[in-house]
Amino acid sequence: MPENPLHLLLDPRSVATVGAGNNPLKMGTLQALSLIKDGYQGKFYPIHPTDKIVLGHKAYASPMELPETPDLVLIVVPTDQVIPVLEDFAKIGTKRAIIISAGFRETGDAGREREGRLKEIAAASGMRFLGPNCMGVMNTGNNLNMTIGELPGKPGALGFASQSGTYVAQTLLYLKERGIRFSKAVSCGNEADIDITDVLEYLGEDEQTKAIILYIEGLRDGRRFIEAARRITPHKPVLAQYVGGSAAGAQAGQSHTGALTGPDLLYDGIFRQAGIIRCHSIEDLYAHGWAHATQPPLRGNRLAVVTNSGGPGTAISHTADQGGMTVPRFSGVLQAKIRPLIPPHAACGNPVDLTFHLDTQVLALTIPEFIMESGEVDGLILHGAVNSGFMKMVYSHVSGFMADVPREVFLEMMAKEMPAAVELPRKYDLPLLISSFFGREDNFTSLYIDNDIPVFDSPEKAARGMASLLRHLEIRRRKSIGTPVLPPASPVAMEIIRMALATGQKALDEHQAKQILAAYGVPVTREEIARSEDEAVKIANDIGFPLAVKACAWEIMHKSGLGLIALNVRTEEALRESFRSVREAAGSPIPVLIQEMVTGGREFVAGMTRYPGFGPCVLFGLGGVFTEALQDTTLRSAPLSAVEAEEMLADIRAKALLGEFRGLPAVDGSALAGILQVVGVISLLHPEITEIDLNPIIIAKAMPVVADALFILRA
Amino acid sequence: MPENPLHLLLDPRSVATVGAGNNPLKMGTLQALSLIKDGYQGKFYPIHPTDKIVLGHKAYASPMELPETPDLVLIVVPTDQVIPVLEDFAKIGTKRAIIISAGFRETGDAGREREGRLKEIAAASGMRFLGPNCMGVMNTGNNLNMTIGELPGKPGALGFASQSGTYVAQTLLYLKERGIRFSKAVSCGNEADIDITDVLEYLGEDEQTKAIILYIEGLRDGRRFIEAARRITPHKPVLAQYVGGSAAGAQAGQSHTGALTGPDLLYDGIFRQAGIIRCHSIEDLYAHGWAHATQPPLRGNRLAVVTNSGGPGTAISHTADQGGMTVPRFSGVLQAKIRPLIPPHAACGNPVDLTFHLDTQVLALTIPEFIMESGEVDGLILHGAVNSGFMKMVYSHVSGFMADVPREVFLEMMAKEMPAAVELPRKYDLPLLISSFFGREDNFTSLYIDNDIPVFDSPEKAARGMASLLRHLEIRRRKSIGTPVLPPASPVAMEIIRMALATGQKALDEHQAKQILAAYGVPVTREEIARSEDEAVKIANDIGFPLAVKACAWEIMHKSGLGLIALNVRTEEALRESFRSVREAAGSPIPVLIQEMVTGGREFVAGMTRYPGFGPCVLFGLGGVFTEALQDTTLRSAPLSAVEAEEMLADIRAKALLGEFRGLPAVDGSALAGILQVVGVISLLHPEITEIDLNPIIIAKAMPVVADALFILRA
Repeated sequence: MPENPLHLLLDPRSVATVGAGNNPLKMGTLQALSLIKDGYQGKFYPIHPTDKIVLGHKAYASPMELPETPDLVLIVVPTDQVIPVLEDFAKIGTKRAIIISAGFRETGDAGREREGRLKEIAAASGMRFLGPNCMGVMNTGNNLNMTIGELPGKPGALGFASQSGTYVAQTLLYLKERGIRFSKAVSCGNEADIDITDVLEYLGEDEQTKAIILYIEGLRDGRRFIEAARRITPHKPVLAQYVGGSAAGAQAGQSHTGALTGPDLLYDGIFRQAGIIRCHSIEDLYAHGWAHATQPPLRGNRLAVVTNSGGPGTAISHTADQGGMTVPRFSGVLQAKIRPLIPPHAACGNPVDLTFHLDTQVLALTIPEFIMESGEVDGLILHGAVNSGFMKMVYSHVSGFMADVPREVFLEMMAKEMPAAVELPRKYDLPLLISSFFGREDNFTSLYIDNDIPVFDSPEKAARGMASLLRHLEIRRRKSIGTPVLPPASPVAMEIIRMALATGQKALDEHQAKQILAAYGVPVTREEIARSEDEAVKIANDIGFPLAVKACAWEIMHKSGLGLIALNVRTEEALRESFRSVREAAGSPIPVLIQEMVTGGREFVAGMTRYPGFGPCVLFGLGGVFTEALQDTTLRSAPLSAVEAEEMLADIRAKALLGEFRGLPAVDGSALAGILQVVGVISLLHPEITEIDLNPIIIAKAMPVVADALFILRA
Repeated sequence: MPENPLHLLLDPRSVATVGAGNNPLKMGTLQALSLIKDGYQGKFYPIHPTDKIVLGHKAYASPMELPETPDLVLIVVPTDQVIPVLEDFAKIGTKRAIIISAGFRETGDAGREREGRLKEIAAASGMRFLGPNCMGVMNTGNNLNMTIGELPGKPGALGFASQSGTYVAQTLLYLKERGIRFSKAVSCGNEADIDITDVLEYLGEDEQTKAIILYIEGLRDGRRFIEAARRITPHKPVLAQYVGGSAAGAQAGQSHTGALTGPDLLYDGIFRQAGIIRCHSIEDLYAHGWAHATQPPLRGNRLAVVTNSGGPGTAISHTADQGGMTVPRFSGVLQAKIRPLIPPHAACGNPVDLTFHLDTQVLALTIPEFIMESGEVDGLILHGAVNSGFMKMVYSHVSGFMADVPREVFLEMMAKEMPAAVELPRKYDLPLLISSFFGREDNFTSLYIDNDIPVFDSPEKAARGMASLLRHLEIRRRKSIGTPVLPPASPVAMEIIRMALATGQKALDEHQAKQILAAYGVPVTREEIARSEDEAVKIANDIGFPLAVKACAWEIMHKSGLGLIALNVRTEEALRESFRSVREAAGSPIPVLIQEMVTGGREFVAGMTRYPGFGPCVLFGLGGVFTEALQDTTLRSAPLSAVEAEEMLADIRAKALLGEFRGLPAVDGSALAGILQVVGVISLLHPEITEIDLNPIIIAKAMPVVADALFILRA
């Protein structure tokens, strides 16, 4: 594998800037200032057309005058100057560039052409670049900061790859308030060259990075993304937000970074396939990511809740329950240890509710420690640890009694030091999350934040944070995905498709489609084409009644409701009559398919659609008449390993139908999953097929049989 | 209607306290201090056993010594003293009490008994009380504050009834930071007397209150709650959080306030029935409630997004879209007005993305005003209006250039005043919500907050806030619910039930159940009981083939999979065979139901369960074999008006099945809704029936027919 381009980009020995000057409120200058002021140890070479000194450093009129070839150039110039500047640096052999300037693909065709030119210049000289239309990068491991904000005080553990610059560069005060610190953060911009998958791969290998977050408006190489992600997710949590899956989101993303979007369902599916935890807001992305980056991994779903107030305790319990956690009742032994420490009517069974209570020692340390050492839970959420914030809240009311105590002294009175409280997660190797309505004005909130224990400003958020940790436990417990193997293409299938295309078919007829499926081992209905009534009768005697009788021509893509199909045909007489009526409805003496009548209480659908960037994607869902009405489906990018296909089965709401059901045996899951795998295989081996729809797949006793099939061909 | 007990409780001319002393860190003292310090204008009478002066006021040793009968007493004493104190105040004729003390129903049987005693004392003297186990009340309309926190600076417009004291009393700093201000807030505690519905009714009438929020752990008189709420919700938004619908939530609520909980689905249903907007976190409850309380109502779903950054613009658009909003492309005329104000490559079609931009005048005023006056949208979300916060973010980097400018002056430099920006919602009567990553450290955030324009600290939250306003538009547009009319009980039905109970039946057999349904006008299958093969054949000739043949005895509640049912019986021979085989499977010569065979592609279920506090609740959902597997159901409390029953039809995920579907006509919605109404009517008129299950209701062409029915009787 070639070296990841981010290594040099995030750890250059020297950086040139074009566009930084001495006006401190310009973007380029702000970025250069961040580089200079935040402690970057490499060389800094400002290029400036007129000024001899930029930001206190010797400036150069052009790249040609530089004393050495810089590893990296940061370009923040008007759009029309970007190409010549990049050419100059390509000429002197600079290997990495960050292009902040906008005005490329996101603006339409002319911009797309300009962006193409950037790619050509870079490719010709072996240069790799980030952007254009991005907001810079930061690496807290070496104090490299090329954003407009300030680095946090100490290095962090959360890696971030973002298709929005703002989320890297303009939320730094927001993050500081919450103690969230990046290891590396990269704004990807238009991804003309380096893309979000490169960044993801880099962060996956980076030791400083303990968890990864991704903000995504659209992926251009979805398959590569999936493969990169799933090498990482079994051992390092990856969380992602995707906002391109609605009409409004797709339109906004298009004008933002020219994003190539796909439906929400697709991203839901590929995130699951890749082991990525999906978030639905930037707040959750940051906060859940930080919980993953700082807390020991969750090893089970048993949650303890300790609170000084019933409402938050109930809300935490309810929300955690909905996220898959349990809030188990503590043993008698554990309750007996807690009981003497709390008021007589207070609850100690879990949640432990101390009720209105100001003894933070008991609330934040003694009781949590009893619980953690008990082995009865896998994680703990604490609500209500507060000292000085409470004092601030009541100060104006009680100050009359404290006339001789200055406010500062009063506030400090209860501001206990309690370093042992923040050692609990490490000491017991269990995650601890905090819920508090008090911000940094409270000494306990600050204590937790400053010691990398996430504080959530409302109870439900802490519970959802814990549920996010549970998602990664599930991902760690996933079966090894395995490598899907692509068999050789079937000559039978190739010939059917070749013939169909040669005769101008835009789709395969049902029988052709089934022959292809059968060639790849998929169980289909027994059936034959009849071209006369007598032939139909002969076939019927081979197959046996009851039968389905269907018009069979590629032009007829949907048969129901049009008289083109007769089901449950039980006698020769009925067969002859059906044969005639189907032909009559078709209006011509077309071939008629005589098909074994498969019945069963359960019907599913499998299908395939090609999405740009993802190749063929396989759909699975509830079939028959319910497919459209219930839209209970799930998608994956092909090829699929057996494990991935089986995971799809568990993904639909109606999954209870797959088990034993109303006297029917459990569905043969591996046979059904096998069909999904084959749909992927056929799609990959036969690119002439643009869409597949197998509906219904009827479960006969336990075994799936494809009862109808539609393959659309490339126009 | 008797006067609402909250009137006097929240506006007493005089207040006595028991439990307030001179130790400022005790709950009772803190509450009394709030009363004294926050500007309450009535009389204050502390009762204290020893101190002559409490908090600077003359104290009395007992209620008997008071110079007048106080309107209200606040009781904060140990559990065992509550009863005698309440008795004393009952004796002197005090009409309202707030009992903060805990140790009652929430602790078990002895506590339940104590709580019963409180109710007796109050009832005997005409006193009404709040609590026990609550945290007090506040009324910002008259500066009455009996919580442990401080009133906000000026009165607010958000009314709050809470089954958690913390959310009224301990979040005041949190709310102050966000500018959220209550009109009245009431912590309901155990609701031994005054309950959350009393508070809701009071807030519904209160002119200061523009929107109402409710935190609910469980409702004891659900039906009364629904009726109270739906008188309010068409004109005043009511939002509610419910946390008792999971195992963990129910358990935690039980030990908190002894809450009577019900399943989540039930509360989902009754909230819809009552026109209440459901929230899933206290953060949303406060923030969305505040948006409803401060912003003009939304009159359509067209959203404008103005931003200085693409990521937040995309995230807002996507999230709003998922909440039912559209982000329509602006007209050419409007775009032409915006275009000259923004950078050349910036987007102006909606979202308007100014890109990195520090001219808040254009971002926060000029462009929003163009948009609002255009009439092209119904609401606007603005992201990125920031001045001094940005300066703070970059100050440390640029300060070298500003050596002669002190930090304060620098920060003020860009801290523009822009009062016109906050006038926009009022001027154009359109809601405006703000998204910003900057808190009160930014002058714009403070400007908006202090002028009652909600600021959300991440983009998706602002979008969800706007979607919440849209929910109230839908509620305002709801058809008038109408009054359900209860017909007289059917003598036929009464007789069937009487006979069944007299003979020890624990359920009705299918045929009995259908006769009752038919008596109330519900279409059921044509059918007769046969007691011999010959009788079966005779009935078959009346009804006509095909037929269903079913064992019919009340003990047989579930027939499928046991050989007790034969479907699609088409010939006399098959009928005779089915008759014999059904009896054989039953093991005795039981009655056999000969029933017309109704077929149709669509099956639904209707049912009834009785929930404590809600009476009979009617269920509707997808029927047949899919009922259990898909759990696509919705619930309402009976009786149901026609409008309410029709709303249930639109509530299931599979609602597409009700329209024209695969060649089938649209279902007759009023006939199907009529069945739901009758299920409610039967349940109310015949309390002996504890459960009803009509499954399947088959849609034959367009008309629903009940094909199977189970009624369970009171044991």
